[in-house]
Amino acid sequence: MKRYLLTPGPTMISPEVQLEMAKPIIHHRAPEFIPLMEEVRENLKWLFGSKNEVLIFASSGTGAMDGAVTNTLCKGDKALVVDGGKFGERWANICKAYGVSAKVIKVEWGKSVNPSEVAKALEEDRDIKAVLIQASETSTGVVHPVKEIADIVKNYENTILIVDGITAVGVYPLPMDEWGIDVLITGSQKALMLPPGLAFAGVSDKAWKFVEKSDLPKFYFDFKKELKNIKDNQTAYTPAVSLIIGLAQVLREMKKEGLENIYKRHQRLADATREAMKAIGLKLFAPDSPSNAVTSVYSPEGIEAGKIIKYCRDKLGVTITGGQDQAKGKIFRIAHLGYYDRFDIIIAISAIEFALKALNYSFELGAGVKKALEILAE
Amino acid sequence: MKRYLLTPGPTMISPEVQLEMAKPIIHHRAPEFIPLMEEVRENLKWLFGSKNEVLIFASSGTGAMDGAVTNTLCKGDKALVVDGGKFGERWANICKAYGVSAKVIKVEWGKSVNPSEVAKALEEDRDIKAVLIQASETSTGVVHPVKEIADIVKNYENTILIVDGITAVGVYPLPMDEWGIDVLITGSQKALMLPPGLAFAGVSDKAWKFVEKSDLPKFYFDFKKELKNIKDNQTAYTPAVSLIIGLAQVLREMKKEGLENIYKRHQRLADATREAMKAIGLKLFAPDSPSNAVTSVYSPEGIEAGKIIKYCRDKLGVTITGGQDQAKGKIFRIAHLGYYDRFDIIIAISAIEFALKALNYSFELGAGVKKALEILAE
Repeated sequence: MKRYLLTPGPTMISPEVQLEMAKPIIHHRAPEFIPLMEEVRENLKWLFGSKNEVLIFASSGTGAMDGAVTNTLCKGDKALVVDGGKFGERWANICKAYGVSAKVIKVEWGKSVNPSEVAKALEEDRDIKAVLIQASETSTGVVHPVKEIADIVKNYENTILIVDGITAVGVYPLPMDEWGIDVLITGSQKALMLPPGLAFAGVSDKAWKFVEKSDLPKFYFDFKKELKNIKDNQTAYTPAVSLIIGLAQVLREMKKEGLENIYKRHQRLADATREAMKAIGLKLFAPDSPSNAVTSVYSPEGIEAGKIIKYCRDKLGVTITGGQDQAKGKIFRIAHLGYYDRFDIIIAISAIEFALKALNYSFELGAGVKKALEILAE
Repeated sequence: MKRYLLTPGPTMISPEVQLEMAKPIIHHRAPEFIPLMEEVRENLKWLFGSKNEVLIFASSGTGAMDGAVTNTLCKGDKALVVDGGKFGERWANICKAYGVSAKVIKVEWGKSVNPSEVAKALEEDRDIKAVLIQASETSTGVVHPVKEIADIVKNYENTILIVDGITAVGVYPLPMDEWGIDVLITGSQKALMLPPGLAFAGVSDKAWKFVEKSDLPKFYFDFKKELKNIKDNQTAYTPAVSLIIGLAQVLREMKKEGLENIYKRHQRLADATREAMKAIGLKLFAPDSPSNAVTSVYSPEGIEAGKIIKYCRDKLGVTITGGQDQAKGKIFRIAHLGYYDRFDIIIAISAIEFALKALNYSFELGAGVKKALEILAE
């Protein structure tokens, strides 16, 4: 059975990148590593929309989230956490682990935060040092209004905006410098179309001032140490060399496609997925502010979402994902980020139609794919 | 742009086979080659439905066609050639090259031969030594009635049946011994899901008697020499080692799937393709006897087939093929043989719908894919 990986990370990897990573390994403290890092540094700045260095860690994305807190804040600091899903919760958990006091804005799962709530919280408590948010909340398929929130945080000299862009960077625009994002994080296994194992953190000038004052304990995720190293085209500790080789190739391919085209492609694939699901009578979990990285869909009445996922995986070879925690069993999630084209969407929708048909859901077989074709035709 | 190879050879290669072939190369006159060849020999017999050895050549399929003529016939012999397409023509050309007198049954492109014509020709000329035919005429997408013809040839002690099964072996049943096929040929880059470079010839007891008497010149494609060698788990000349390593893996996977399931899968994919094309108002080129390897479809009135093919390739990354010679510009061909599942069919049909839409053909976008989904749902 052929296998199709249509999850929000790991995402699919292009053959060119796979072959690049399969080449003989090189040593990172050797001359051949230098031009590779020079290229990667420049292209990461391009991707993040920042004049500043983007730090690279051998870790999952969560590592860079951890570092974003420990490098910018101090013991007892207050942080405002937007929690609208599993990854919002994670911000609060990281704060707790390091003695940062998290003021949480709870957002109903499937909804995005109202920027006015952030404005209000900041106005009410001038001691808040950081706003922590997801650009795209992967667990619910929601996009939060980062630009609007950046516009608010900008007015507070003593507050920075820390954005988890793990399923957002490379999916839709998050230009750090232009918008005023202070720390922007992503991981390798999402829109960067690599295996898991690399995390990235872009850091603004404003955030670097926070780093200078930060007194939280850190060692592996030490931003200052990494900044010093990356300027010498190195990382402080052993980098995941083959992933960095792959990253160089990925960034070349992304530059060739162009950011605008990449964002448009994601928009189109997301549109097709959402409309296809509606065409077969399903309800979107995040209809008002859907992320272009992943579409969350309510399973039909009487059909546990796990059954759809299991059928797709076991009978069709198609891996999609379900809901987590409170959304478990209720939703399934179709990813459309990274190395993904219109035919992948058609496969995903076909698979769901096959599964729903087998599970006796009453609908017009083919109606979803037909709708997708209409949107995906030139 | 992602690339989708949906042609009748080379066909797609499974990742497992690609990885197998990427392992360090081994030497063919060394002990580790022996168990590999033992396994391959047994599994080729299983695939060909023959108790006899299946010979392996480092060549394209045409090499084994060449050898089938030069090893079984004598100078001045008469052969009956069924010519219903480009590959039928090739049989006649090979005969001509070696001084074999070819009596040709011309079959209209898109049609299959009527077995009674073969019966009549053999009855009229008892000197015919061989009937040369395609099981599947790739250029037109037609299947010829090999079983019926084998039943006829069986009655002639001095005539053998030589079958080009290049796009047929592994697509639908051609059990050599059971049906009485005397020479059966295939190549690696079709249902065997390997890169091009290997050809195969199964040879019946009756055909081996012809080999004993044959006086046509041959060297590289010497069946007797190869038979001697293969019994020692070798080939006479250097084998395409990495392809044989891949072949071993392919045959393992085919045994796991089972011949009956493989044939059923091809039938289903072919059915879906044909019905989808009809659902968008297109006419099949070979409606009466379509091959399960490839579906040939008339391009709509006023649209040159090359435009559809070019659009699919350049705009969508999907490679399908056109017609050859007299069918050039008139038809396009969608392959569905080898490492091919239902989603590949859906991709092919979607691509053609996208192309037809862009070329202003008037039809209901999505109708083809909808029909395919109905057929491909469990």
